[in-house]
Amino acid sequence: MTKLTRLDKLRLRLEAQNACLGWAFGQIENMDGPVFELGLGHGRTYDHLRTYLPDRDIFVFDREIDCYEDCTPPDDRMFLGNIDETLQSASKRFPRKAALVHSDMGSYTEAHNAAMSAKLSRLLPEVVAPGGLIVSDLPLAMDDAETLPLPPGALEGRYFLYRAL
Amino acid sequence: MTKLTRLDKLRLRLEAQNACLGWAFGQIENMDGPVFELGLGHGRTYDHLRTYLPDRDIFVFDREIDCYEDCTPPDDRMFLGNIDETLQSASKRFPRKAALVHSDMGSYTEAHNAAMSAKLSRLLPEVVAPGGLIVSDLPLAMDDAETLPLPPGALEGRYFLYRAL
Repeated sequence: MTKLTRLDKLRLRLEAQNACLGWAFGQIENMDGPVFELGLGHGRTYDHLRTYLPDRDIFVFDREIDCYEDCTPPDDRMFLGNIDETLQSASKRFPRKAALVHSDMGSYTEAHNAAMSAKLSRLLPEVVAPGGLIVSDLPLAMDDAETLPLPPGALEGRYFLYRAL
Repeated sequence: MTKLTRLDKLRLRLEAQNACLGWAFGQIENMDGPVFELGLGHGRTYDHLRTYLPDRDIFVFDREIDCYEDCTPPDDRMFLGNIDETLQSASKRFPRKAALVHSDMGSYTEAHNAAMSAKLSRLLPEVVAPGGLIVSDLPLAMDDAETLPLPPGALEGRYFLYRAL
Protein backbone atom coordinates (compact mmCIF):
# COMPACT_ATOMS: atom_id res chain seq x y z
CA MET A 1 0.00 0.00 0.00
CA THR A 2 1.22 3.47 -0.89
CA LYS A 3 2.07 5.61 2.13
CA LEU A 4 -0.48 8.21 3.17
CA THR A 5 0.34 11.54 1.58
CA ARG A 6 -0.25 14.87 3.26
CA LEU A 7 -3.30 15.22 1.05
CA ASP A 8 -4.62 11.80 2.14
CA LYS A 9 -4.12 12.75 5.78
CA LEU A 10 -6.10 15.98 5.44
CA ARG A 11 -8.93 14.21 3.61
CA LEU A 12 -9.08 11.33 6.09
CA ARG A 13 -9.03 13.79 8.99
CA LEU A 14 -11.97 15.72 7.53
CA GLU A 15 -13.89 12.50 6.86
CA ALA A 16 -13.29 11.25 10.40
CA GLN A 17 -14.21 14.64 11.88
CA ASN A 18 -17.42 14.73 9.83
CA ALA A 19 -18.44 11.22 10.88
CA CYS A 20 -17.66 11.90 14.56
CA LEU A 21 -19.57 15.19 14.60
CA GLY A 22 -22.59 13.73 12.78
CA TRP A 23 -22.73 10.88 15.28
CA ALA A 24 -22.29 13.26 18.22
CA PHE A 25 -25.13 15.52 17.00
CA GLY A 26 -27.51 12.56 17.32
CA GLN A 27 -26.14 11.53 20.70
CA ILE A 28 -26.70 14.91 22.37
CA GLU A 29 -30.19 15.45 20.94
CA ASN A 30 -31.84 14.89 24.31
CA MET A 31 -29.09 16.44 26.42
CA ASP A 32 -29.13 20.02 27.67
CA GLY A 33 -26.04 22.18 27.70
CA PRO A 34 -24.03 24.40 25.39
CA VAL A 35 -21.61 23.32 22.69
CA PHE A 36 -18.00 24.51 22.79
CA GLU A 37 -15.85 24.98 19.71
CA LEU A 38 -12.13 25.16 20.59
CA GLY A 39 -10.16 26.77 17.79
CA LEU A 40 -12.20 28.97 15.45
CA GLY A 41 -9.61 29.02 12.66
CA HIS A 42 -11.29 29.88 9.35
CA GLY A 43 -14.68 29.23 10.96
CA ARG A 44 -15.59 26.18 8.84
CA THR A 45 -16.41 23.92 11.76
CA TYR A 46 -18.25 26.71 13.56
CA ASP A 47 -20.38 27.04 10.40
CA HIS A 48 -20.99 23.27 10.55
CA LEU A 49 -21.99 23.34 14.21
CA ARG A 50 -24.39 26.28 13.92
CA THR A 51 -25.98 24.73 10.80
CA TYR A 52 -26.54 21.28 12.29
CA LEU A 53 -27.34 22.54 15.82
CA PRO A 54 -29.44 25.66 15.11
CA ASP A 55 -31.07 25.72 18.57
CA ARG A 56 -27.92 25.14 20.59
CA ASP A 57 -25.88 27.80 22.38
CA ILE A 58 -22.45 27.57 20.78
CA PHE A 59 -19.41 29.21 22.41
CA VAL A 60 -16.18 29.59 20.50
CA PHE A 61 -12.66 29.69 21.97
CA ASP A 62 -9.68 31.18 20.20
CA ARG A 63 -6.87 33.67 20.70
CA GLU A 64 -8.17 35.85 17.92
CA ILE A 65 -10.92 36.14 15.34
CA ASP A 66 -9.43 35.45 11.92
CA CYS A 67 -12.21 33.62 10.08
CA TYR A 68 -14.40 34.04 7.00
CA GLU A 69 -16.55 37.07 7.56
CA ASP A 70 -19.76 35.06 7.25
CA CYS A 71 -18.51 32.63 9.93
CA THR A 72 -17.89 35.19 12.66
CA PRO A 73 -19.55 34.21 15.96
CA PRO A 74 -21.55 36.84 17.88
CA ASP A 75 -19.37 38.81 20.33
CA ASP A 76 -21.16 37.38 23.36
CA ARG A 77 -20.39 33.82 22.23
CA MET A 78 -16.60 34.24 22.04
CA PHE A 79 -14.08 33.31 24.72
CA LEU A 80 -11.07 35.26 23.46
CA GLY A 81 -7.62 34.55 24.90
CA ASN A 82 -5.26 31.76 25.85
CA ILE A 83 -7.02 28.43 26.07
CA ASP A 84 -5.89 27.88 29.70
CA GLU A 85 -7.54 31.07 30.85
CA THR A 86 -10.64 30.89 28.70
CA LEU A 87 -11.38 27.27 29.62
CA GLN A 88 -10.95 28.14 33.29
CA SER A 89 -13.42 31.03 32.91
CA ALA A 90 -15.80 28.72 31.09
CA SER A 91 -15.55 26.12 33.84
CA LYS A 92 -16.80 28.75 36.29
CA ARG A 93 -19.64 29.91 34.09
CA PHE A 94 -20.56 26.43 32.81
CA PRO A 95 -19.22 23.94 35.38
CA ARG A 96 -19.59 20.48 33.79
CA LYS A 97 -22.41 21.75 31.58
CA ALA A 98 -21.26 21.37 27.95
CA ALA A 99 -23.07 18.64 26.02
CA LEU A 100 -20.39 18.61 23.32
CA VAL A 101 -16.89 19.99 22.93
CA HIS A 102 -15.26 20.01 19.52
CA SER A 103 -11.56 20.65 19.89
CA ASP A 104 -9.34 21.39 16.89
CA MET A 105 -6.24 22.67 18.65
CA GLY A 106 -3.51 20.67 16.92
CA SER A 107 -0.76 22.26 14.89
CA TYR A 108 2.08 20.86 12.87
CA THR A 109 4.66 20.54 15.61
CA GLU A 110 4.80 17.47 17.82
CA ALA A 111 5.95 19.46 20.85
CA HIS A 112 3.01 21.85 20.62
CA ASN A 113 0.59 18.96 20.22
CA ALA A 114 1.90 17.00 23.20
CA ALA A 115 1.69 20.07 25.45
CA MET A 116 -1.77 20.96 24.13
CA SER A 117 -3.05 17.40 24.67
CA ALA A 118 -1.85 17.46 28.28
CA LYS A 119 -3.44 20.87 28.88
CA LEU A 120 -6.79 19.91 27.36
CA SER A 121 -6.83 16.58 29.20
CA ARG A 122 -6.55 18.53 32.45
CA LEU A 123 -9.03 21.32 31.64
CA LEU A 124 -11.80 19.73 29.58
CA PRO A 125 -13.26 17.47 32.30
CA GLU A 126 -14.18 20.66 34.21
CA VAL A 127 -16.50 21.88 31.45
CA VAL A 128 -18.04 18.73 29.93
CA ALA A 129 -21.32 17.45 31.41
CA PRO A 130 -21.46 13.86 32.68
CA GLY A 131 -22.29 11.87 29.55
CA GLY A 132 -21.19 14.75 27.33
CA LEU A 133 -18.92 14.19 24.35
CA ILE A 134 -15.50 15.44 23.30
CA VAL A 135 -14.60 15.25 19.59
CA SER A 136 -10.91 16.08 19.22
CA ASP A 137 -8.22 16.26 16.56
CA LEU A 138 -5.64 15.41 19.25
CA PRO A 139 -5.60 12.30 21.44
CA LEU A 140 -6.44 13.11 25.07
CA ALA A 141 -5.77 11.26 28.31
CA MET A 142 -8.53 11.93 30.85
CA ASP A 143 -9.24 9.86 33.94
CA ASP A 144 -12.88 10.83 34.00
CA ALA A 145 -13.77 9.97 30.42
CA GLU A 146 -14.02 6.84 28.29
CA THR A 147 -12.49 6.54 24.85
CA LEU A 148 -15.14 5.63 22.26
CA PRO A 149 -14.63 3.77 18.98
CA LEU A 150 -15.10 6.01 15.96
CA PRO A 151 -18.40 5.74 14.04
CA PRO A 152 -18.63 4.28 10.50
CA GLY A 153 -16.93 6.49 7.92
CA ALA A 154 -14.13 7.46 10.28
CA LEU A 155 -10.73 5.77 10.20
CA GLU A 156 -9.38 5.06 13.72
CA GLY A 157 -6.56 7.39 14.72
CA ARG A 158 -7.58 10.21 12.37
CA TYR A 159 -9.84 11.85 15.02
CA PHE A 160 -10.64 11.07 18.66
CA LEU A 161 -13.88 10.63 20.57
CA TYR A 162 -14.47 10.62 24.33
CA ARG A 163 -17.45 10.52 26.67
CA ALA A 164 -17.21 12.17 30.09
CA LEU A 165 -18.15 9.93 33.03
CA MET B 1 -31.58 18.50 3.31
CA THR B 2 -29.35 20.74 5.40
CA LYS B 3 -27.37 23.25 3.35
CA LEU B 4 -23.73 22.44 2.69
CA THR B 5 -21.54 24.06 5.31
CA ARG B 6 -18.09 25.45 4.60
CA LEU B 7 -16.72 22.30 6.25
CA ASP B 8 -18.86 20.07 3.99
CA LYS B 9 -17.62 21.95 0.93
CA LEU B 10 -13.97 21.50 1.85
CA ARG B 11 -14.46 17.78 2.55
CA LEU B 12 -16.42 17.17 -0.66
CA ARG B 13 -13.84 19.10 -2.65
CA LEU B 14 -11.02 16.94 -1.25
CA GLU B 15 -12.98 13.75 -1.89
CA ALA B 16 -13.72 14.80 -5.48
CA GLN B 17 -10.10 15.85 -6.04
CA ASN B 18 -8.85 12.52 -4.67
CA ALA B 19 -11.20 10.49 -6.87
CA CYS B 20 -10.33 12.52 -9.98
CA LEU B 21 -6.58 12.26 -9.39
CA GLY B 22 -6.74 8.52 -8.65
CA TRP B 23 -8.67 7.97 -11.86
CA ALA B 24 -6.30 10.18 -13.84
CA PHE B 25 -3.21 8.33 -12.56
CA GLY B 26 -4.59 5.14 -14.16
CA GLN B 27 -5.52 6.91 -17.39
CA ILE B 28 -2.04 8.31 -18.06
CA GLU B 29 -0.17 5.12 -17.20
CA ASN B 30 0.72 4.46 -20.84
CA MET B 31 1.14 8.09 -21.85
CA ASP B 32 4.45 9.91 -21.97
CA GLY B 33 4.87 13.48 -20.81
CA PRO B 34 5.40 15.44 -17.63
CA VAL B 35 2.83 16.28 -14.97
CA PHE B 36 2.14 19.91 -14.07
CA GLU B 37 0.98 21.04 -10.65
CA LEU B 38 -0.49 24.58 -10.76
CA GLY B 39 -0.56 26.12 -7.29
CA LEU B 40 1.91 24.60 -4.83
CA GLY B 41 0.23 26.02 -1.72
CA HIS B 42 1.20 23.96 1.34
CA GLY B 43 2.52 21.24 -0.98
CA ARG B 44 -0.04 18.58 -0.03
CA THR B 45 -1.08 17.78 -3.60
CA TYR B 46 2.52 17.88 -4.80
CA ASP B 47 3.25 15.27 -2.12
CA HIS B 48 0.33 13.22 -3.47
CA LEU B 49 1.52 13.45 -7.08
CA ARG B 50 5.14 12.53 -6.35
CA THR B 51 4.01 9.60 -4.19
CA TYR B 52 1.58 8.11 -6.71
CA LEU B 53 3.66 9.00 -9.77
CA PRO B 54 7.22 8.28 -8.59
CA ASP B 55 8.66 7.91 -12.09
CA ARG B 56 7.05 10.98 -13.62
CA ASP B 57 8.67 14.39 -14.14
CA ILE B 58 6.56 16.76 -12.08
CA PHE B 59 6.79 20.53 -12.59
CA VAL B 60 5.25 22.92 -10.10
CA PHE B 61 3.92 26.41 -10.83
CA ASP B 62 3.47 29.09 -8.17
CA ARG B 63 4.35 32.68 -7.43
CA GLU B 64 6.35 31.64 -4.38
CA ILE B 65 7.46 28.64 -2.36
CA ASP B 66 5.55 28.63 0.92
CA CYS B 67 4.97 24.93 1.58
CA TYR B 68 5.83 22.32 4.22
CA GLU B 69 9.57 21.89 4.20
CA ASP B 70 9.30 18.20 3.32
CA CYS B 71 7.10 19.05 0.31
CA THR B 72 9.50 21.46 -1.40
CA PRO B 73 10.02 20.59 -5.08
CA PRO B 74 13.58 20.54 -6.47
CA ASP B 75 14.67 23.96 -7.80
CA ASP B 76 14.83 22.73 -11.38
CA ARG B 77 11.21 21.57 -11.23
CA MET B 78 9.71 24.93 -10.25
CA PHE B 79 8.19 27.51 -12.59
CA LEU B 80 8.21 30.54 -10.28
CA GLY B 81 6.21 33.63 -11.22
CA ASN B 82 2.84 34.78 -12.52
CA ILE B 83 0.88 31.94 -14.02
CA ASP B 84 0.49 33.75 -17.38
CA GLU B 85 4.23 34.01 -17.82
CA THR B 86 5.19 30.63 -16.42
CA LEU B 87 2.58 28.76 -18.48
CA GLN B 88 3.78 30.58 -21.58
CA SER B 89 7.38 29.54 -20.83
CA ALA B 90 6.20 26.00 -20.22
CA SER B 91 4.33 25.94 -23.52
CA LYS B 92 7.61 26.70 -25.29
CA ARG B 93 9.59 24.08 -23.38
CA PHE B 94 6.80 21.46 -23.37
CA PRO B 95 4.47 22.33 -26.27
CA ARG B 96 1.39 20.10 -25.87
CA LYS B 97 3.44 17.58 -23.92
CA ALA B 98 1.92 17.33 -20.43
CA ALA B 99 0.09 14.07 -19.74
CA LEU B 100 -1.70 15.56 -16.72
CA VAL B 101 -2.24 19.03 -15.33
CA HIS B 102 -3.62 19.43 -11.82
CA SER B 103 -4.78 22.99 -11.32
CA ASP B 104 -5.72 24.32 -7.88
CA MET B 105 -5.78 28.04 -8.60
CA GLY B 106 -9.13 29.03 -7.06
CA SER B 107 -9.41 31.48 -4.20
CA TYR B 108 -12.34 32.75 -2.20
CA THR B 109 -13.37 35.63 -4.42
CA GLU B 110 -15.68 35.13 -7.38
CA ALA B 111 -13.98 37.85 -9.42
CA HIS B 112 -10.55 36.25 -9.04
CA ASN B 113 -11.96 32.84 -9.95
CA ALA B 114 -13.75 34.03 -13.08
CA ALA B 115 -10.61 35.79 -14.34
CA MET B 116 -8.42 32.79 -13.46
CA SER B 117 -10.77 30.36 -15.24
CA ALA B 118 -10.65 32.49 -18.38
CA LYS B 119 -6.87 32.72 -18.24
CA LEU B 120 -6.35 28.98 -17.68
CA SER B 121 -8.87 28.11 -20.40
CA ARG B 122 -6.75 30.12 -22.82
CA LEU B 123 -3.31 28.91 -21.69
CA LEU B 124 -3.72 25.25 -20.73
CA PRO B 125 -4.48 23.87 -24.22
CA GLU B 126 -0.96 24.96 -25.23
CA VAL B 127 0.71 22.66 -22.70
CA VAL B 128 -1.53 19.57 -22.50
CA ALA B 129 -0.81 16.66 -24.83
CA PRO B 130 -3.60 15.43 -27.11
CA GLY B 131 -5.49 12.95 -24.91
CA GLY B 132 -3.93 14.44 -21.77
CA LEU B 133 -6.03 15.28 -18.72
CA ILE B 134 -6.77 18.44 -16.75
CA VAL B 135 -8.01 18.04 -13.18
CA SER B 136 -9.14 21.45 -11.92
CA ASP B 137 -10.74 23.06 -8.87
CA LEU B 138 -12.22 25.71 -11.20
CA PRO B 139 -14.53 25.10 -14.17
CA LEU B 140 -12.78 25.79 -17.47
CA ALA B 141 -14.11 26.54 -20.94
CA MET B 142 -11.78 25.21 -23.63
CA ASP B 143 -12.66 24.64 -27.28
CA ASP B 144 -10.05 21.94 -27.70
CA ALA B 145 -11.03 19.75 -24.75
CA GLU B 146 -13.98 17.61 -23.73
CA THR B 147 -15.58 17.79 -20.29
CA LEU B 148 -15.56 14.37 -18.61
CA PRO B 149 -18.00 13.06 -15.99
CA LEU B 150 -16.37 12.69 -12.58
CA PRO B 151 -15.38 9.18 -11.45
CA PRO B 152 -17.15 7.33 -8.60
CA GLY B 153 -16.52 8.95 -5.20
CA ALA B 154 -16.61 12.48 -6.64
CA LEU B 155 -19.69 14.67 -6.45
CA GLU B 156 -20.32 16.56 -9.73
CA GLY B 157 -19.48 20.25 -9.47
CA ARG B 158 -16.97 19.85 -6.62
CA TYR B 159 -14.05 19.37 -9.03
CA PHE B 160 -13.68 19.42 -12.81
CA LEU B 161 -12.16 17.02 -15.31
CA TYR B 162 -11.21 17.61 -18.96
CA ARG B 163 -9.46 15.70 -21.72
CA ALA B 164 -7.56 17.60 -24.40
CA LEU B 165 -8.53 16.74 -27.98
